[in-house]
Amino acid sequence: MSTPVPVRGKTGVSIKRTEGPDPGVEAIRAKDPVTIVIFGASGDLAKRKLLPALYHLHCGGYLPERYAVVGFSRTRLSDDAYRDSMLTALHAQVPGETIAADHPIVQALYYQPGDADDPQTFQALRSRLEKIEQERGLPGNRLFYLSVAPEFFPLILENLAAAGLIRQKSDAVWSRVIIEKPFGTDLASARALNAIVAATLDESQIYRIDHYLGKETVQNILSFRFGNSIFEPLFNQKYVDNVQITVAEELGMEGRRGAYYDGAGTIRDMVQNHILQLFCLIAMEPPSALEAQAIRDEKVKVLRALVPMTRKEVAANTVRGQYGMGEKGGQVVKGYRQEDGVDPQSITETFLALRMKVDNWRWAGVPFFLRSGKRLAKRVSEIVVEFKQPPLHLFRYLGDKDDAIVARPMSNVIVMRIQPDEGISLSIACKQPGMRIHLQEVEMDFFYGEAFHERSPEAYERLLLDALRGDASLFTRSDEVEYSWRFVTAILDAWADLPPPGFPNYYPFSDGPDEANRLLAGTQARWRPLRES
Amino acid sequence: MSTPVPVRGKTGVSIKRTEGPDPGVEAIRAKDPVTIVIFGASGDLAKRKLLPALYHLHCGGYLPERYAVVGFSRTRLSDDAYRDSMLTALHAQVPGETIAADHPIVQALYYQPGDADDPQTFQALRSRLEKIEQERGLPGNRLFYLSVAPEFFPLILENLAAAGLIRQKSDAVWSRVIIEKPFGTDLASARALNAIVAATLDESQIYRIDHYLGKETVQNILSFRFGNSIFEPLFNQKYVDNVQITVAEELGMEGRRGAYYDGAGTIRDMVQNHILQLFCLIAMEPPSALEAQAIRDEKVKVLRALVPMTRKEVAANTVRGQYGMGEKGGQVVKGYRQEDGVDPQSITETFLALRMKVDNWRWAGVPFFLRSGKRLAKRVSEIVVEFKQPPLHLFRYLGDKDDAIVARPMSNVIVMRIQPDEGISLSIACKQPGMRIHLQEVEMDFFYGEAFHERSPEAYERLLLDALRGDASLFTRSDEVEYSWRFVTAILDAWADLPPPGFPNYYPFSDGPDEANRLLAGTQARWRPLRES
Repeated sequence: MSTPVPVRGKTGVSIKRTEGPDPGVEAIRAKDPVTIVIFGASGDLAKRKLLPALYHLHCGGYLPERYAVVGFSRTRLSDDAYRDSMLTALHAQVPGETIAADHPIVQALYYQPGDADDPQTFQALRSRLEKIEQERGLPGNRLFYLSVAPEFFPLILENLAAAGLIRQKSDAVWSRVIIEKPFGTDLASARALNAIVAATLDESQIYRIDHYLGKETVQNILSFRFGNSIFEPLFNQKYVDNVQITVAEELGMEGRRGAYYDGAGTIRDMVQNHILQLFCLIAMEPPSALEAQAIRDEKVKVLRALVPMTRKEVAANTVRGQYGMGEKGGQVVKGYRQEDGVDPQSITETFLALRMKVDNWRWAGVPFFLRSGKRLAKRVSEIVVEFKQPPLHLFRYLGDKDDAIVARPMSNVIVMRIQPDEGISLSIACKQPGMRIHLQEVEMDFFYGEAFHERSPEAYERLLLDALRGDASLFTRSDEVEYSWRFVTAILDAWADLPPPGFPNYYPFSDGPDEANRLLAGTQARWRPLRES
Repeated sequence: MSTPVPVRGKTGVSIKRTEGPDPGVEAIRAKDPVTIVIFGASGDLAKRKLLPALYHLHCGGYLPERYAVVGFSRTRLSDDAYRDSMLTALHAQVPGETIAADHPIVQALYYQPGDADDPQTFQALRSRLEKIEQERGLPGNRLFYLSVAPEFFPLILENLAAAGLIRQKSDAVWSRVIIEKPFGTDLASARALNAIVAATLDESQIYRIDHYLGKETVQNILSFRFGNSIFEPLFNQKYVDNVQITVAEELGMEGRRGAYYDGAGTIRDMVQNHILQLFCLIAMEPPSALEAQAIRDEKVKVLRALVPMTRKEVAANTVRGQYGMGEKGGQVVKGYRQEDGVDPQSITETFLALRMKVDNWRWAGVPFFLRSGKRLAKRVSEIVVEFKQPPLHLFRYLGDKDDAIVARPMSNVIVMRIQPDEGISLSIACKQPGMRIHLQEVEMDFFYGEAFHERSPEAYERLLLDALRGDASLFTRSDEVEYSWRFVTAILDAWADLPPPGFPNYYPFSDGPDEANRLLAGTQARWRPLRES
């Protein structure tokens, strides 16, 4: 035990701050002067996430001393007009702070109009970048952020390369490219995209983003598993009965989302990326170090242990759902097929429950239950590890018979909440005070927000900073993408052959279709009611 | 997972009450009509603990429908005078409740004067008991409570037997005897006392009381260890680095206590009984059932694994202390040698720290550190299980070097607090929110008092009820007593041969002598500062 200074949190959780050198911001800030180029510069993501993230990174002192941010988009705008529109966006996203027009982050903004399919405009971009870099004394390190629809990825990469905008890995200055999801729509398209990427960039230059991995609690999964000595010995088939991963949303098809979603479905929108990433973090072996290659090697290993399912297995182990019409607070809520941009006969799933087996030594025989959907009872993302029940013959359960010892079957459960209320809880059995030995389930909760007073950085802040620092730990490697698509494509193929499901089959703001329960047969698992999560 | 109804406690701890049959009081109450005979009927224990315990048992509905309580002591008193004095005691001990003179518990009191060494008075007691039992319709089940100085135990047992007051085990009505501690002063005297007891009573009729075992948290140790599946796999030499048991008191030699204590010392007063019992509960193997024989068999097994130390081992593994004079709040506080009834040259220890090894498969190589004393910084009883540190090369600790990953050596610690603030806490490492991966120690606390609204019964209530019900689980068996004395007597013998320690060697209201730290050499253990406990 070290000699910690205790600090008491709000909820019976006390934090012990171990004293000692705190390398702080200096340890982690990006040091290389850089030019950040945002494709899709006037889009929603840029306004709502990227600019605010850069603003917070600047204010926190995480950005290098010299940098520029260049927007690239089809719209014709002057630098000043772009600065104005971004300042407006910042005011909306960072309420309560006065950001002046001469704030360094605003002054570092530039705008260059152009077309993804017009090589000429990439030559113009190159000249513009060189000019800005000369003015600002920037050496030419460049981070290209592809915040555009996926069909533009190949074109932009090719044009960047053709215009000589991508440096070799061996060059003195670096080029890196962040690609937004989705990365492909099945195994074949992901492979094709990887081939195009590989023709232009070294794998070390590509940062496939999955913003889920930037969330504090997601990162905390590794700290929790490998920073403590008491959990790792328990995380295996000897002690774990089942693992449950839920990413539920209350939202339906807001705005123009229906048109995209109807071609994707829950499996592409959530399972292939976010949920399989969460699965990797909870199920992978300990990496040899907390660095990109070691972590991604382990993720690939556990993804390979997801053996693609046969058609029969898919029929048995997947349950699809689609929400119908309903009502909330006296207001009619559209069914999925009534949403804008959605085919009125659509058989796209807006809910998916999945039972997976992991074919390795650690997890043999432990079912992993995944569940995700739209228009569910509550927005919640969590991982639940349920342990086997202890042999309770010791505390024999006697039902109606009178006795002094009462214990129902009860299992220890660890819940890692990713949203809302990021935190960890552990349920344990305790003796209820009193004359009898009566075991009672007690939950020990730890809420990030209540225990720590530090502001948790937004996922995009962390990921942008990591890309600027050249740390790809939280980004997805080509083989990771392909192995997750391998698993998902087998399901997509089987669905294409199976009779279409009877949609709609669940009400808006419910826990999804009841049929999801059939996946649990033969296990002690129960889907956690969303309202209670 | 069952479908529990969540109830939220005060401190982020939520209790899930599993619904179902609750056999309640009826399941646990004593059903055999009984006569309780208290030897030492007007003594301190009877007034402060036994009568209040019987009162609460009565009010809770735990006592049989018909019962009588007969006091036996040297003082000549009428029934009414005894009832008056007990009523006064009850008012003092149960403030805030109006207890009338005609309360059933008061009306059930009788008094019979007598001498422990006068067989005649036992004949008189017998006639009196038979008369009361006839009046009250009691069949003759009798619980004799020997709340007297230990030198009277043999005499009372012999006289009870001679007067025909002890029934055979095979009789239709039962006789049981509760004996207060201390049970012997070394191995030889404990054996001699056991022989006397065995001549009079079957082992199943004798209840050697250690009130520590009646405390909720002490009983919860077994529920915690064996009612959860996640702790038992970790409680062994593979994962535990060390175990620390502390029973510290702030009190010195109040009243006439010095005279007794000077002949006993910490080792007899605390270690041989309370602390070794706590050790048994935390270190024993799972019993085959939660019943007296199975539990006590396992306690004896683990006590046998405490190999008596040689003189050299005693010198290396024990540190004795005695408090000197000091000062608190401007007031001079007596040193031990200045206390009433204490030899001014006394070398009796008022503090003992002890390092033990447990010679079995489960605990090989895991040091158990015991610590107890008077006039220490705080009254606290707790068991601390400290786990081995995880291999943190993963989160390499870089000291002064800048880096993005910072983790100091940190170990998981489970603390079971017995007093004050009964509860359990678990310290785990979490990622501190922010850009760096900075592991932070976080404590998840569970306080009995805050989580449960039920009143925790007093230790004596539970133990009296158990004796009335014939459940000896929480009482000490003859072989338990002898094995704990075997271990303790080896230490006493070695001390007699070793040079006397240099007393006094610690200040009142401190953490005891610094020398106690030498026991920790070569381990990752640190004594938990008492003020922080």
